[in-house]
Amino acid sequence: MAGNRLEEFAPMFYPKSHAVIGASANVRKFGGRFLGALLSFGYGGRLYAVNPQESEVLGLETYRSVGDIPGPVDFASIAVPALAVPGVVEECLAKGIKAVQILSAGFSEVGEEGRRLEREVARTAAKGIRIIGPNCFGVYCPAGGLTILPGERLPKQSGPVAFISQSGGYAVRVPIRASGWGVRFSKVISYGNACDVNECDLLEYLYQDPETKIITGYIEGVKDGPRFFKLLQEVSKTKPVILWKGGLTQGGARAAHSHTASLSGEEVIWEAVFRQTSAIRVNSLEELLDTTITFLHLAPQRGRKVCVVGGGGGIGVAAADVCERVGLSVPLFPAELQTKLASIVPAAGASVRNPVDVGGPFPTPAMLTAVLETVFSDGDVDTMIVDELQFARTTDLLRDGTARSGNDFGELAQVPVDIKTRFSRPVIMVLPVEATAPDALEFEGARRKLYNYYLGQGIPVYLTLERAAKALSNFFGYYQRRDAISS
Amino acid sequence: MAGNRLEEFAPMFYPKSHAVIGASANVRKFGGRFLGALLSFGYGGRLYAVNPQESEVLGLETYRSVGDIPGPVDFASIAVPALAVPGVVEECLAKGIKAVQILSAGFSEVGEEGRRLEREVARTAAKGIRIIGPNCFGVYCPAGGLTILPGERLPKQSGPVAFISQSGGYAVRVPIRASGWGVRFSKVISYGNACDVNECDLLEYLYQDPETKIITGYIEGVKDGPRFFKLLQEVSKTKPVILWKGGLTQGGARAAHSHTASLSGEEVIWEAVFRQTSAIRVNSLEELLDTTITFLHLAPQRGRKVCVVGGGGGIGVAAADVCERVGLSVPLFPAELQTKLASIVPAAGASVRNPVDVGGPFPTPAMLTAVLETVFSDGDVDTMIVDELQFARTTDLLRDGTARSGNDFGELAQVPVDIKTRFSRPVIMVLPVEATAPDALEFEGARRKLYNYYLGQGIPVYLTLERAAKALSNFFGYYQRRDAISS
Repeated sequence: MAGNRLEEFAPMFYPKSHAVIGASANVRKFGGRFLGALLSFGYGGRLYAVNPQESEVLGLETYRSVGDIPGPVDFASIAVPALAVPGVVEECLAKGIKAVQILSAGFSEVGEEGRRLEREVARTAAKGIRIIGPNCFGVYCPAGGLTILPGERLPKQSGPVAFISQSGGYAVRVPIRASGWGVRFSKVISYGNACDVNECDLLEYLYQDPETKIITGYIEGVKDGPRFFKLLQEVSKTKPVILWKGGLTQGGARAAHSHTASLSGEEVIWEAVFRQTSAIRVNSLEELLDTTITFLHLAPQRGRKVCVVGGGGGIGVAAADVCERVGLSVPLFPAELQTKLASIVPAAGASVRNPVDVGGPFPTPAMLTAVLETVFSDGDVDTMIVDELQFARTTDLLRDGTARSGNDFGELAQVPVDIKTRFSRPVIMVLPVEATAPDALEFEGARRKLYNYYLGQGIPVYLTLERAAKALSNFFGYYQRRDAISS
Repeated sequence: MAGNRLEEFAPMFYPKSHAVIGASANVRKFGGRFLGALLSFGYGGRLYAVNPQESEVLGLETYRSVGDIPGPVDFASIAVPALAVPGVVEECLAKGIKAVQILSAGFSEVGEEGRRLEREVARTAAKGIRIIGPNCFGVYCPAGGLTILPGERLPKQSGPVAFISQSGGYAVRVPIRASGWGVRFSKVISYGNACDVNECDLLEYLYQDPETKIITGYIEGVKDGPRFFKLLQEVSKTKPVILWKGGLTQGGARAAHSHTASLSGEEVIWEAVFRQTSAIRVNSLEELLDTTITFLHLAPQRGRKVCVVGGGGGIGVAAADVCERVGLSVPLFPAELQTKLASIVPAAGASVRNPVDVGGPFPTPAMLTAVLETVFSDGDVDTMIVDELQFARTTDLLRDGTARSGNDFGELAQVPVDIKTRFSRPVIMVLPVEATAPDALEFEGARRKLYNYYLGQGIPVYLTLERAAKALSNFFGYYQRRDAISS
């Protein structure tokens, strides 16, 4: 592990002064779109625009070159054509700038001439300036007032999750998608071709960063496999590292090469990496978010025994399949507990073996309470999954449901929160989008409010049981592998 | 294959007269909820309420028993306590009723006494009356004016999809969920314990039913494995049969037994069934719906070669992974085609090998048009997947987006429709829920409208590329296996 990355990387994330080189008033240009985003996001340090053709850009006085800026500059964002980039980076070095991000594309991802340019830039980096990119969207760090290229409306609040992404597209998409689920980020870094700062450097930084508790990433290829592997082993001992590895199939690997000039590892190598470290492997944006939400809201846990409580037996049958397929255990309840539960749920047709069927999606609050407390008191289960009970009436799902959807949450919806609080044990919920028609939006709005309410109460919520079960399995697996590796 | 099921089963689906036995004004009772649903749905035939304790129920004159009804009765729905059911079924037989559905629970799913009652009922069936259930929600058939137990607001329009379900819960959930995706049903049958009419009988009926083009089902266990297997082979030669088999894991199988008293087959047997017939296996409600939507909107097709067009290279890398994992092919484009595409997309950083990266989620309509027509003209691909382009601005995703979300679809959104029409080749779309916050509902409303617009244009739409790719793979696999089996 390297020395103090916090100090070294501070100018990238908390710059007191920031030059945008290639600043433009044209929002169809990278430099224009980026400057607009930064202004709109509200960067609070000294901001300088560099553009030799204009005297003023978006209300900022411009400088012909970064060397003309009177005061010191911590950080620069570069959005000039690729051919001009090496010279600009040299000027930044001469100015004493500590770090830059190169938003421009046209480097090793496009062929020999681009590779030559990128090598030139990397040589300057070696002289004492850290470089993010090229071919990237840069850094989003709310506490430092920084946002990525198309990120003017990303949340201004910080949070404990970091996301590093070789893909600019996902560097935007992940925080946007996550924001609706209450996830907030310490840093998002789109690092593109990684001619200097790469996934290993960022991992080291985020490991040391006190703002970051959970590290997530989308990576296509790594520059230094052995270093990355050792780092993953070390970092994932104390902070969960959730990685989505792109480019594992033939078509994906081919696409990765033309995207960020990475050579993707073979599937088999990556499987070994994930087996021999505690890093968590995910295979989609949704799985990355679901798993992150689980880590955000549940205390560390190894036990895989779940109880699924749902309404309607078929739902319970499918639920058991779903859980066991991803390695959760749905233990058969002992006869005594079954008898107790049978005295609570409707007499006929409801299973009490686990999954527990409360007879339909609308149990009374008293019945649901009795079921959950009986299972937690008498059953040998680690986690309670409340699956697709309906906190608004089914009959409202096909229309706008104005009368009921807003008010009907009340008592029934409160039950999982009460049980979680009283027993101090994990409860998770599945709340699917039941109403998908354009005219059922009000119901969807109510569902989202309920969703956020549960997240605020420390109850992670998922859209389907499949997604919930996979995220839980990833979560338990992390702590199990951590134990196994450290013992 | 049996004789004319259409005539035999007509009273179940198109009854001219219908008795509800156990009719009640109490909506907390099955008989009350069911009668209310039927009245609200608008059953158009002669409706009779049977209840010896009341003289009037929900505005209907009541009869003490079904034998007291003056005119002929085609069909009866039975919602009386389990112990009274055998006698009531005998009365129905005596009255000359052709078919009944038993909504009551408390039969073989609850133990020995229940099994005895169910055998008694089955003996009456053998004397000349067909029985759906017991322990079920019954039949939804819009053309016959019938709806299931909690189905008062299910769509009144018919459609080409049938769904049979051993689970009452899914018999409600599937048509509700599907309705927002424009899927309409010919029949939904919740058949519960299947003491008489079982999955085989229903499969025979739906095979003959001219209203049904696509058969879907959720089943836990089958009564007669060899008959079911032969039927699947035969039926799936002409109508796609999409089956979700519950109870394949240990926990799931245990739950299935207590749910509908079925013995689930082993996973390995079912794998053989799906391999040796053209029936399509799905593993979740979402996959069932996605696959159904594919069959509804695409013409028969075997070719697995897809082109993925998306914005942002990382998205393309992950896209290739996703497609190849489920057995689609993402062929590398020949150099000549790559050169053509490279002259269309932004110069730097955009892959043209397939997946094709249009440089970001907001290509100009002209660029997207040029890419799609070049690929269809020059590329050896069967299906075009347009992946997560944004037809409203990213910046609107985090707020309500009042200004833009409604109007911004225009020209860009029209491109896939034009291409599909001009080339008469399949185009599919991925339109995720990008805006998940409670205050971003307007954007979600606009997304749903766009969604419906594409479905109306014969372009299936999916929420994620993972779901799209799996559904496409299921779809191609059906026609491939059908060819292989018949040759």
